[in-house]
This record gives sequence, C-alpha cells and structure tokens, in this order.
Amino acid sequence: MVPRYARPQMTAIWSPENRYRIWFEIEAHATDALAELGVVPQSAAKALWDWWATEPTIDVAAIDAIEAVTKHDVIAFLTWVAEHVGDEARFMHQGMTSSDVLDTCLAVQLTQAADILLADLDALLEAIKRRAHEHKLTPTIGRSHGIHAEPVTFGLKLAEAYAEFARCRTRLIAARAEIATCAISGAVGTFANIDPRVEAHVAAKLGLAIEPVSTQVIPRDRHAMFFATLGVIASSIERLAVEIRHLQRTEVLEAEEYFSPGQKGSSAMPHKRNPVLTENLTGLARMVRSAVTPALENVALWHERDISHSSVERFIGPDATVTLDFALARLTGVVDKLLVYPARMQKNLDRMGGLVHSQRVLLALTQAGASREDSYALVQRNAMKVWESDGQLSLLDLLKADADVTARLSADQLTDLFDLGYHMKHVDTIFARVFGAA
Amino acid sequence: MVPRYARPQMTAIWSPENRYRIWFEIEAHATDALAELGVVPQSAAKALWDWWATEPTIDVAAIDAIEAVTKHDVIAFLTWVAEHVGDEARFMHQGMTSSDVLDTCLAVQLTQAADILLADLDALLEAIKRRAHEHKLTPTIGRSHGIHAEPVTFGLKLAEAYAEFARCRTRLIAARAEIATCAISGAVGTFANIDPRVEAHVAAKLGLAIEPVSTQVIPRDRHAMFFATLGVIASSIERLAVEIRHLQRTEVLEAEEYFSPGQKGSSAMPHKRNPVLTENLTGLARMVRSAVTPALENVALWHERDISHSSVERFIGPDATVTLDFALARLTGVVDKLLVYPARMQKNLDRMGGLVHSQRVLLALTQAGASREDSYALVQRNAMKVWESDGQLSLLDLLKADADVTARLSADQLTDLFDLGYHMKHVDTIFARVFGAA
Amino acid sequence: MVPRYARPQMTAIWSPENRYRIWFEIEAHATDALAELGVVPQSAAKALWDWWATEPTIDVAAIDAIEAVTKHDVIAFLTWVAEHVGDEARFMHQGMTSSDVLDTCLAVQLTQAADILLADLDALLEAIKRRAHEHKLTPTIGRSHGIHAEPVTFGLKLAEAYAEFARCRTRLIAARAEIATCAISGAVGTFANIDPRVEAHVAAKLGLAIEPVSTQVIPRDRHAMFFATLGVIASSIERLAVEIRHLQRTEVLEAEEYFSPGQKGSSAMPHKRNPVLTENLTGLARMVRSAVTPALENVALWHERDISHSSVERFIGPDATVTLDFALARLTGVVDKLLVYPARMQKNLDRMGGLVHSQRVLLALTQAGASREDSYALVQRNAMKVWESDGQLSLLDLLKADADVTARLSADQLTDLFDLGYHMKHVDTIFARVFGAA
Amino acid sequence: MVPRYARPQMTAIWSPENRYRIWFEIEAHATDALAELGVVPQSAAKALWDWWATEPTIDVAAIDAIEAVTKHDVIAFLTWVAEHVGDEARFMHQGMTSSDVLDTCLAVQLTQAADILLADLDALLEAIKRRAHEHKLTPTIGRSHGIHAEPVTFGLKLAEAYAEFARCRTRLIAARAEIATCAISGAVGTFANIDPRVEAHVAAKLGLAIEPVSTQVIPRDRHAMFFATLGVIASSIERLAVEIRHLQRTEVLEAEEYFSPGQKGSSAMPHKRNPVLTENLTGLARMVRSAVTPALENVALWHERDISHSSVERFIGPDATVTLDFALARLTGVVDKLLVYPARMQKNLDRMGGLVHSQRVLLALTQAGASREDSYALVQRNAMKVWESDGQLSLLDLLKADADVTARLSADQLTDLFDLGYHMKHVDTIFARVFGAA
Repeated sequence: MVPRYARPQMTAIWSPENRYRIWFEIEAHATDALAELGVVPQSAAKALWDWWATEPTIDVAAIDAIEAVTKHDVIAFLTWVAEHVGDEARFMHQGMTSSDVLDTCLAVQLTQAADILLADLDALLEAIKRRAHEHKLTPTIGRSHGIHAEPVTFGLKLAEAYAEFARCRTRLIAARAEIATCAISGAVGTFANIDPRVEAHVAAKLGLAIEPVSTQVIPRDRHAMFFATLGVIASSIERLAVEIRHLQRTEVLEAEEYFSPGQKGSSAMPHKRNPVLTENLTGLARMVRSAVTPALENVALWHERDISHSSVERFIGPDATVTLDFALARLTGVVDKLLVYPARMQKNLDRMGGLVHSQRVLLALTQAGASREDSYALVQRNAMKVWESDGQLSLLDLLKADADVTARLSADQLTDLFDLGYHMKHVDTIFARVFGAA
Repeated sequence: MVPRYARPQMTAIWSPENRYRIWFEIEAHATDALAELGVVPQSAAKALWDWWATEPTIDVAAIDAIEAVTKHDVIAFLTWVAEHVGDEARFMHQGMTSSDVLDTCLAVQLTQAADILLADLDALLEAIKRRAHEHKLTPTIGRSHGIHAEPVTFGLKLAEAYAEFARCRTRLIAARAEIATCAISGAVGTFANIDPRVEAHVAAKLGLAIEPVSTQVIPRDRHAMFFATLGVIASSIERLAVEIRHLQRTEVLEAEEYFSPGQKGSSAMPHKRNPVLTENLTGLARMVRSAVTPALENVALWHERDISHSSVERFIGPDATVTLDFALARLTGVVDKLLVYPARMQKNLDRMGGLVHSQRVLLALTQAGASREDSYALVQRNAMKVWESDGQLSLLDLLKADADVTARLSADQLTDLFDLGYHMKHVDTIFARVFGAA
Repeated sequence: MVPRYARPQMTAIWSPENRYRIWFEIEAHATDALAELGVVPQSAAKALWDWWATEPTIDVAAIDAIEAVTKHDVIAFLTWVAEHVGDEARFMHQGMTSSDVLDTCLAVQLTQAADILLADLDALLEAIKRRAHEHKLTPTIGRSHGIHAEPVTFGLKLAEAYAEFARCRTRLIAARAEIATCAISGAVGTFANIDPRVEAHVAAKLGLAIEPVSTQVIPRDRHAMFFATLGVIASSIERLAVEIRHLQRTEVLEAEEYFSPGQKGSSAMPHKRNPVLTENLTGLARMVRSAVTPALENVALWHERDISHSSVERFIGPDATVTLDFALARLTGVVDKLLVYPARMQKNLDRMGGLVHSQRVLLALTQAGASREDSYALVQRNAMKVWESDGQLSLLDLLKADADVTARLSADQLTDLFDLGYHMKHVDTIFARVFGAA
Repeated sequence: MVPRYARPQMTAIWSPENRYRIWFEIEAHATDALAELGVVPQSAAKALWDWWATEPTIDVAAIDAIEAVTKHDVIAFLTWVAEHVGDEARFMHQGMTSSDVLDTCLAVQLTQAADILLADLDALLEAIKRRAHEHKLTPTIGRSHGIHAEPVTFGLKLAEAYAEFARCRTRLIAARAEIATCAISGAVGTFANIDPRVEAHVAAKLGLAIEPVSTQVIPRDRHAMFFATLGVIASSIERLAVEIRHLQRTEVLEAEEYFSPGQKGSSAMPHKRNPVLTENLTGLARMVRSAVTPALENVALWHERDISHSSVERFIGPDATVTLDFALARLTGVVDKLLVYPARMQKNLDRMGGLVHSQRVLLALTQAGASREDSYALVQRNAMKVWESDGQLSLLDLLKADADVTARLSADQLTDLFDLGYHMKHVDTIFARVFGAA
C-alpha cells in the first residue's frame, strides 16, 4: 500500500497488531469449545481469557524474533502467548493447523474491510444523491462519442452514477458474504483431530458462517470473487472520475473539482486548475483492478493446498482494500464539493445552433407523413449547414426557410419542436426508479 | 471463438440470424406498445408480426450489403425489413436509437448464454456428485504443498469441487440478473421521444427487467460483473483440471482421464496416456479469464456513451461464453468417465511408512502429559528417520522402540493411533453440509 | 478473430491451408537433411518434393476426417500426405515429434505475421510523418490535464506519435527475433533420435535461428515477450486514438475523422459526426492487450512440456495479430485522411485571454528581480481574473494595469512576452531529433 | 511493497531520500547548464553545489510539511532547498516544469533498479550454470504432460533455465535502455522557456539519453515496455519454481529445497518438508505480472499529459522492482542450495519397466522395414502391458518374447536399444549452444 493513498482505519485492519488480536480470539474461542467438549481443561481457556483481560500489549518485535528462529509465523505467535500465559497454554491450538488460524483471520479482516467499504459506498451514495437532487433539472447537453447529442440534466448524470454505485453496494454485500466463512477443520480439512463443533463455535463468535468443506484452507474461489468485485467497483469509480475530467476540460468547463485557496496547480503555469483528484482516481482504479488477475490465478492451488496464494494476498489484501477505501472517500469528497456551472452548461447546450433538436424534427416530419429516409435527408441537409457554421447558423431558422420542410410543418410547429422542457418530462420517472418514490 | 472449442447451441446464440431475430422482436414488441399508446397505427405492428409469422429467412448477406453502403448496422437491418414489410415499416423504431436495440439484444443473448451455462453447471454438479458418493470412503492421501499430509477420501476431494461449483452456480445466477435488463430510452436515455411504457412492455415480453437509468446504453458495470463471474468460474475449472493432471502423473497415477481405444497419445511414444483434456481446460481457463480485464476497461465510457465497448464485446461476448460452455461440458465428461484407481491410492497412502499419522501421535503425547515442544521433538526425530528411509522404515515400529515415547504411550495405544478410520469419522458430516441431508 | 476486424492477408496466415503448407515444408526439409545424413533414402525426400511440385490442393476436410479418428493432428496430416505420396512417405518425421512440427510452424506463422505488422507500422509512420510535416508549424494549444497549458504545434503532436511508433517498430523487430527459432529436437528435446544437423538445415531453409535448447517445445517465454510487445503497440494505438477522440469533441473540434458522403452517424440524430473509428481502435487496443496475460501464464509449462499453451495460442495467435494488423491499418487511414482545422485550433488557443503565456511572464518577472514566490503571486492574481471571466478579460491588459507588475516590466516588454513564435523556436530541433536531419 | 519480500538495496531506491537526492542533482545540473548559457548567474549553481557538498541531511518530514500546505511536491522540495541555500536558489528550476524533475528522476530510479536486477540475473545465471555442469550427465526422466517420456539429464533441465534467464537478461538490457531517457523540455515539451542544451547536459551527467520528443512527460510506452519485460521475467521465475515444486512432490522427490536445521514445516505434521520457497515464488510471479496491465493502461494519457499514471507508478515502480529483486535472489538461493537426489532420479527412470525406450524401438522397427503403422502397433501392444503392470513387467522382456518383433530385430539388437547413453549423446552439443564452447 502507498501511504499517500491510505486512510488509518482501513490500514489498521492490516496491522500486525490487529492480525495477532484476531489470531488470539480464534485460538481462545477454539479453546473454549475444546474445553466444553472435554478435550482440554476449562482452566486452559480461562487462563487465556484472563490474560487477555489484562489488555496485554501485542509485542510484534518479540513475535518476529521468535519467527526468525522457527520460520513459522503461527508457531512463533503461540510460543509468545505461552511465554505470557504459562503452562496452560499448551492446550491451545489442539488439533488445529496454521491455516485454520490464518484463513479464518483473513476472513475476519476482509469482512472488516468490506464493512468500511460499505460505509464508504453509503457516504458516496449520499453525496451523489444530494447533488443529483440539487441539479435534477439543471439542463446540460448529453454527449455520445464526445459529440453533442440531445439535452439531459446534470441530475440525470448523477442518477446514473447513483444507480451504478447502488449496484456496487449490492455486489459488495454478496462479496462480503463470499469471504465471511470460518474454517477450523485441521490438517487437510478432515476434522480428524478436531470436532466440527469447535468450528461452529468460533464461527458464531466471530460472526462468520462455517466453511462447508475446507481442505485445510478456505477455497480461493471465494477470494477471487471478492477481489473481482472490488475491481468492478474501481471501474465504476473510474467512470465517474472520467466524466468529471471531461467536464473540467477548458473548452467544456461545466464542472470543476473544488480548488482550495492555498493550492498551486502547476509549478510553471499559475493559472492552471487541474482535475488532479479524478485523474488520480483513474490511476487508483487501475491499481485496484490489477488485483483481480492474481486473485483469479490463486484459485487453482495444488491438491488440498499450497502456499502460493499467501504472498499474493499479503499484497492485494491490504492494497486493494486500502486503495479502494481511499478512492471511494476521495470520490465522495469530489462529488460533495464539486463546483457545478449551470450557466456554462446552458451556453454549451446552445452553441450548436439548435442541432440538438434535430431528432425531434425528424420524428415530427415522419409523423407528418414523410418517409423516414426523406425526413432524414431533409433534416441532415439543414443540420450539416449549422454544423459547418460552428453553430453560428440556427437550425430552426434554416428549417423555417426550407420549403420542403414547411410543406409538412408550420413555423409554429417547428418552434415548438425546439422546446427544452420536452427532454425533461421523464426526469421524475427516472428519479423515482433510481431513488424511490419521493 | 475457436471452432474446435465451440459447441453448436452456444455458438448459435452469436450467429447473425439469432441477433437479427432478437432485433426484430425488440422492434416489433416496441411497435406494439407504440400502437397501444396511439403513437403509431395498430396496422404497423400487425404488418410486422404478419410478416414474421411467415417465418422469413433472415438474409444476412442482403443486410450486410445494405450496411456496406449505410455503414450503420441497425439502419441496414431496418431498411431490409422495410423492403419486405412495406410502407407500414416506417413506423418501426419510432423514437428509438440503435443502442436500444443493440443493448437489449445483447442482454437477451447473454441471458440465453447464461441459461446454457447454468445447465452446464447442473450437469457438472450432477457428475461430480455421483462420483463423490461413489468414492465417499475411498481413502487417499491428502497433500499440502504436494507433500503427503494426512488421509482424506477421494469423495472429499470431489465434495470440495461440488461446493465450489455450487458457489459458481449461485454467482452465475446473480451475474445473469445483472445483465438481464432492457433499455428502450432513446437518445441519451431521456425518453424524450419514446414513452417509458414501451420499455416496460418490451422488457416484459423478453423476460428482462427494465434498466432504471440508461444513458442511451445499458451501463457496462453490469457486463463487467458478468464477465468477471465467468472468469471466477473458469478459475474453478482450472483448479479441478490441475487436480486431475496431478493425479495422473506417472508417479502418482491415482486417476486418469478416460482413454478411448483409437486414441494415440504421442506420435513418437506409443505408451503415453496424457491428461490432455485437463491440460486443455487449463488453457481454456486462461482464455475465459482474459475477458475480465477488457470488460472492466469497458466500464468507463465517455459521457452518455461511446462505442469503444462494442468491438470488445464482439470478441468477448462469443469467446467467453462459447469457451466456458465448451470447458464446462468437457470437464463434465472428464469427471463422468474419470478412471479412478483406489488400489493405487492405498499404495501411495502407505508408501511413507506411516508418517501420515504423525500428528495424531503428537497430540496423543501432548494429552499424555508431554509439553507440545517435547512431543514435537519426539515425533520429529522418528519421523525424520522414516522420511530418510523413503518409507522403508515404519513410524509405528520406531515409536514402539523409542523409550521416551513408550514412557508415555503403550504399544497398543500407539497401534490404535495408526487407524485409518480415525480420519474418516466426519466424512458424513461434511457430505451432509455439501450435499444436504441424505 | 472477428471477421469485421480482420484483413485477408493476415487472416490467411492462420488458415489451415497455410498451416499444412508450412508443416509439409518442415517435414520435407527435414527429410532432405535426413537423406543427406543417410538416415533415410534420398528417394523419400525426392518423392515428397515431387508431389509438392504438383501443387496439390490441401484437402482440409480430408485431414480433419482422419483426425476425428486418430485424435492427433500431426498424425492425421502425415497419414494424409502418405495417402498421396505413397510408400516413401514412411520415412517422413523420422525421430521427430509433433511439437517439432507445431512449434516450428508457429514460429513461421508469427514471423509472417510480424512482417505484415512491420509493414503496417511503416505505412503508419509514413502517414504520420507526412501529416506532421504538413502541420509542423500549425499552432494549437497544448493541454495538460485536459486544461489549456501553453502553445504547441499540431506537427509536434504527430512527431510524438511518430517517435512512439518508431519505438514500437524497434520493439517489434526484437519481438520477431524472439520467436523466429526452429526446434527439431525430438522427444523431450535430446536429439536422441534425430541429429541436430536436421534442425540446422530446416532452420536455414525457413529463415529461422535454431533453438539452443528446447524441451520438445520451444520455450514460451519467447511467445510471452512477443505478445507483450503487441500489447505495448496496442496501447500506443490507443493513445493516438484517444487524442483524436478528444480533438473531435464538439467543444474542441480541432480535427475530425474523415466523414464519407454516404455515412450516417446516428439512426436518430442526423447531425452527428462521431469519432467511431478511433473509439473502435480504443476497444481493439483492449483486446490486443488482453492476450498478454494468458501469454504470460503460458510460460510455466510443467516439466519438459504440457499442452495447456496450445488452446491459448489457437486464440491469441490469430486474434492478437489479426486485430493488431486491422487496427494499425485503420489508424493509418484515420491519420492519412484526418480533417484538421487550423482556424479552430487558433480560436481555441486564443479563447483563454492569453493565459497560456502566464509562465513566460512569471519567468520574466523572476529575471527582472522578483522572487519566485512574488512572481508567482503577481501572475496568479491576474490569471485568476482572466480565468473567471472565461477568457473575456485579457491577461496582457490586466498585467499592464497592475502597478506591481509594471514596476518590473514595461508595457512593451509585456507585449513581447505574448508572442506565439516564442513557443515554436525549437520545433526544428525536435523534428530533427525525430525525423532526422532535413 | 511487502517488507517480508523486500531487500534493502532495492528498497532504498524508492526511499524519499533517494528521490530527493536525484531531484537535487537534476536541478543542480540544470542550473549548471543554465549558468553556462548565461540564463542564470554562475553563483546560483555554485551555491547549490556548495550546499550539497556539506552533505546535508534530507529532512523528509520538513518537506512533507511544506507539501501539506502547497499540495505540490516539487514546489515543496524547491522551497525547502531555498530555505537552506538562500536567495540564489530562486534561479533553480528556471523554465522547467515538475515533470522534468519527476520523470527524469523516475528514469534514474528505474535504471538503478534495472542495474540491481541485472546483477540478480547474473547471480542466478551463475548458480544455474554451476548446478547445470554439476549434473550435466545425471540421468533423469523427461516428462511431457507430467507423464514419463524419455530420459534427459538434470543438467539439461538447468541448461534450459539458463538459456531462458539469459534471454531475460537480454530483454532487461533492452528494457533498461527504454526508460533511460532524460526530459528537460518545460511545459508541454516545447523548450519554449528552456534551451535543449540544458536537457543534453543533465542527460549526460546522469548517464541517460535525451528524450527526442517529450510532451512535458516522458511517453509511457517506454514504461509499459519496461514493466512488461519484468512480467516476462517473473513468468520465467514461475516456470523454474513450478519445476522444483514438482520435483519435490512426495512421489517424485528428485530434488528438494534446502531444509535448515531449525525449520518447522508444519505446526501439526512434524515430518513435512515443503517447497515453500518455490511456492512463494509462484505467488510473487503473479504479483510482478500484475503490474503489466496497469502499466499498459498508463500509456494513453490525455493530450500532452495527465497525471493518472502517477499513482499507478507509485505502486508498481517499487512493488514490481522490489518484488522481482527479492524473487530473483530467492530463486538463486534455492538453485544454489537445491538438494538433488540422483539415486531417486534413476529409480524413477527405471520404474516404468523400460517404457521410456519405446520410441527408439519404434524407429528401429521402421528402419528394419516395418511400416510406421505396424511398428506403432507392435510397440504399443507391448507397451500397454507394461503400463498396466505399473512397471512390474519389462518392455525389453516382452519385446524379446514377441515373435512379430523378433522377426525384425534380434534379442541383442533389442538390448542395445535400451541403452541410456543413447539419449545423452548430444548433451555436449546443447551445452555448447547454451554455455558456449568449453
């Protein structure tokens, strides 16, 4: 993870302290269950929790030092706990294998991360919703292929973004459920040395489902689906970021990222106000997406398990979640404070001399009895003149002067066809679909 | 798509004929709705369906010829239909834009594809389930890191695969829902020239949901999620394929792909029986996965839409679905006819001189009062001798001869610890979790 | 491959006929060498070439029919050849294995493909060079972050593209050398049954280098590098395509894809002139890139070889080369016929009220003795007014009215700082670097 | 970057201190050139170098604090330098833009990184070469599809690895040249405010080439090619790692990663000796490869530049180089200390009852006058019996007892065909190709 693109709460999930804390809880809850089953003494579980109640500092350096000798992280941790808890600690980890601890811990960390990301999405959705309603009827030109098409409203643009991130939210909930499982099934997953009730107990305590069949490890198709989902969310971030970058282009300038007083846009050109946040989001989206392929490649572990997935997850676990959290928060800020320029939107809308109303004229001609082909030709020959004049000519004026057109449509009828409100009559319908009934 | 890796039913979905058939249905249903709303004459809709009732041949070449002039595929199609239906055809496509047809058509094609893939998964699940129950209690060595660990059953391996593909099925249902939407919203998606009730009617007729907010196009995060899901399924195929490739290795040979009488394994070495189907599946998995990144890159279209996604989808739409269909069917065949060798499994299980029981001895020593560290050392010093003898020495014999061990565990106790049944006692539990109660 | 994005010459490389033709040549050249070494009769080689001299039709269907029985493509081909050549054909393929034929054939196909791609690049470079010189001194605004920065020339934009594709050409030559190797080394690559001189002979005849050490297959790191290089070239295509898409935006409109008379931009909006070719190129670039990851995943074959790479290459071999060929040719056409609007470029350049000269003023103030910070503040306070006026105010006028500025720079000095030629003084230098001395 | 997979020398390249040190050198060398050209006073350059000669501590925290206000990293750095150097510092950075510093700095960092990676490759090649010669004639079974094929030597396996990494070395040298360029061309790359001779001077001082045409930024196709090359190298690492993982499988056990005395393979199973280093390398290869796609996506910056590449490079610059450095060093250690078991290799070679010699028999039958089809059938019918006996039957014995065989080949002839030396006769040839003449 890159500190510049990291926020503390998400980063903390991936700290050694948090990891060891979760390991302890897994081990201690398992010991409870083992004691309940009579496999180990009740005193063992009690000793663990008593020590935990003292809120001991997790001494990462000490654990690392042990690992340097044992070359095994879970054994190092258990040894360190035993140093503090004493003899009763030998009952810990009975019948378990390291993967029981590691994989269940990862499940906890990823659910913690997913919860933050869900909150991020909620905040983003809230910001988008507010701005969408603010600009529900702010007219702006809709563009296909970067070319003026027909009028929309700025609120509609944001409604699309809202619907898209609402879908992302639904996907993330499903992805969270994918990885929220607990496996305490022992070596190669047979429960030979540990009763399945231990798994059930630990799962319940940690808010996880049991993994129906593990093979020492939790199957990595779950994680692949999780990271693939993050990749989709990142791509939606990119979409909105690119939209804003386009709107901020000098010639368009319909919206701008908020520009704080002390900020310098360029070391050389003092007038520059650059969409650097959304450009940054574009790059961050690429990074979150880059986790998808290695996560997919992690699925095909050999036989009951190998350890090739582990190094990958040490990267993408923190990187993808921390970066996505940062990106969602950054995007929320951008949307929340976005400078929107309705006057400029109107000016751009008007600059093509009324070409944006061409389709409506086309339809009116068809309905007035012209063939589609003729209607198309009639509109296009006038539209092309307007186009070539760079909007200096008015399509309405030209049409009114075209005898083949006025043979079908009167001047008044033509004027009516250039009404902007015509394009907004279903905004309420769409808003109701996206945001629910008012 | 590569014909060698394609099956006819899925391929047909992507034929021009199927595409034009769907286009016609979209246009004709829309005309019905427009007629119902009084926008176009009822006769127009009737003319379309009357012609359709004659089951006209879709003349792809004729449509292509028109497109060569117009350079626009939907206009070419409409022109061709008009040539056959006559004057009434001019009411078709009123207020619609090409994307309404193209995107809704793609939605239909992808749902058709998803339905085939779901049936493929059902067949695969059925095959795995049958073989899993057949080998529910067939002992085999579980391997972590490719190294013998502890006993499992071959049925457990298949139970894991079943659970994994059952998850894939759930994911695919969700992915199908993602892309099963209909957009008939006109230019830039405002419904300016077409009533939203047209969309609702077409959607209902085609078994799709309405797209809450489209921007002329259906947003591509939906498709990204769809193809990402196919990539996860492909990775699960790879996992099972790799498992079988491992099992067929000369030194392991616990299972083999079915080898048909006429088949030649090698032009040079007549004795070869190679896992070529599962190797092929490994490659095909890479190809299905390769669709994920371009699908993610397709999300960030410019403004209301650009057309960059289109060429990508012309590739990955057919390629990913056709290849995945083929791969699922091939895998089903492999599982269905897999040659399984229980005797060899037992032989491999025994070849390490009982080392696979080491953990159980470790636990027994701990329970008999030794510290974990002492127990570990006691087991390891004997285990290492067995290891170095390549399984010629017996761990049980060595333990019985080790005074430090027999001080804690009697010979009879030690013998009991080497019972294979011990590892299978929870197979029923796991099967019930995976396949449901018997 | 998608026929719509395929050209015949490149497609032909991947036809079965071409493949079988290459197979025959490999086998016949190898038989020559074997005959020379006395391993097989001279008559065997003669029989093969005599038959070949009759220019026999390659009967793909017949070969396919044999493969349906043998399930082995090379054996099927050899059988078919033997049916025509007769008894002497039994000496063909002596000591060789299928991979010798398949991998060497792929090397020939990829070099054929690379040669077409190199010619494509040459044509593209030629077109770019011509347009670059045509617009060497056409002023246009340079943009960073989509925001007006300082003046450049349109020729400079194209010079950058030229330099980039010239690098791509160099890379492709290296990539071609990577895969231009011949392996005729027999099973597991030991030459046990075939003399290395056979390989040397075939390599020389086919214009390939010998593969120093093969393991039955040519190592796939070579192909990975080849497809990675195609991915880089595709990304450069995307860059230029995106540039043109930006230039064609309604508000910018400094250049446009050529718009042919019969073309319809939109079924609904007759005035639309969309950059559909460059949008298409953006999508095609995604597809060519998508071959990179599976090619990288192909490298780690098991032991001396497995066959997982084969299905991947049946896709990406044709797809990546055919699509890249099409894309390069399309881009060449776009550049060649690009409509360039210098008047609009000048208009855009002027629209910011002279802000594009701000840095030069900043430097002049510094050189006139102001601190960098003071200079920056002086320029920025005037620049911001111009910015907020949307270019209605003139930076030069404001500066002339700013006493803190005029305390350091006279009105005449200020006027001189707004000279456009100042920004073009090194265009010759850059052109000489890129295109060589005039 | 993940500290566990990082080595200090490579990590240091990406430290803020190293970055600022390079920035200073760029600025100071540029100031030298500017002074030489008379643009700034000689005293300015002298002031900078005089201060630098005091070996000032780079106060990262102080610079960060300034950046927190200015929100611009280069301005923050320049401000900090000015605080120490004093008034003369105002001449620094004249006519330059941040990208001149940032991109040239990245070029220096990547060349530093490439130099370490080249040294890593040299060390790896040396280790492979040593082990290859040690086992030049150690017989082992060659495997295709994981199935026994014909004999090779262990040295040949390593020779292939050597040739592959030698190719990687050549590629990396080319990739290093790709990114070793210097751009000091000012805003939008026109040299309007800075003489090209400044660039030439700085480039020469830093050991870089000049960038022929930059657009404020160095074009990102260069970096794409660099990271793509790292991805290929990573894939070659994966190949050798997978080979070793296969060799260490319990049933194969022809080689093992070195196992240090204190190491514990498993918290549960004390006998385990797992190939964890090569599994780790498999995962690390996935991560290095994951940088390729974002690097490719970085190429298509908007117009003269945007900043979306920057965040991507903050991740992949360190991650890909640090991880690849670690992986190469780890692989070198694995190869260097690899435990190789020739006796086990021989045992595995013998276990198939001589089937590995089947092709040679096939060829001998052909040469003795049998048709290829008959020869194939004769060999296969005996080979299948051996195969089904799991190597308990001897192919040689069966052939000697097959009258159809002995009609063509005598018992002595058959015995000669089973000579292992036959497969090794060209090892010298291959070694000479790979390692050069002895």
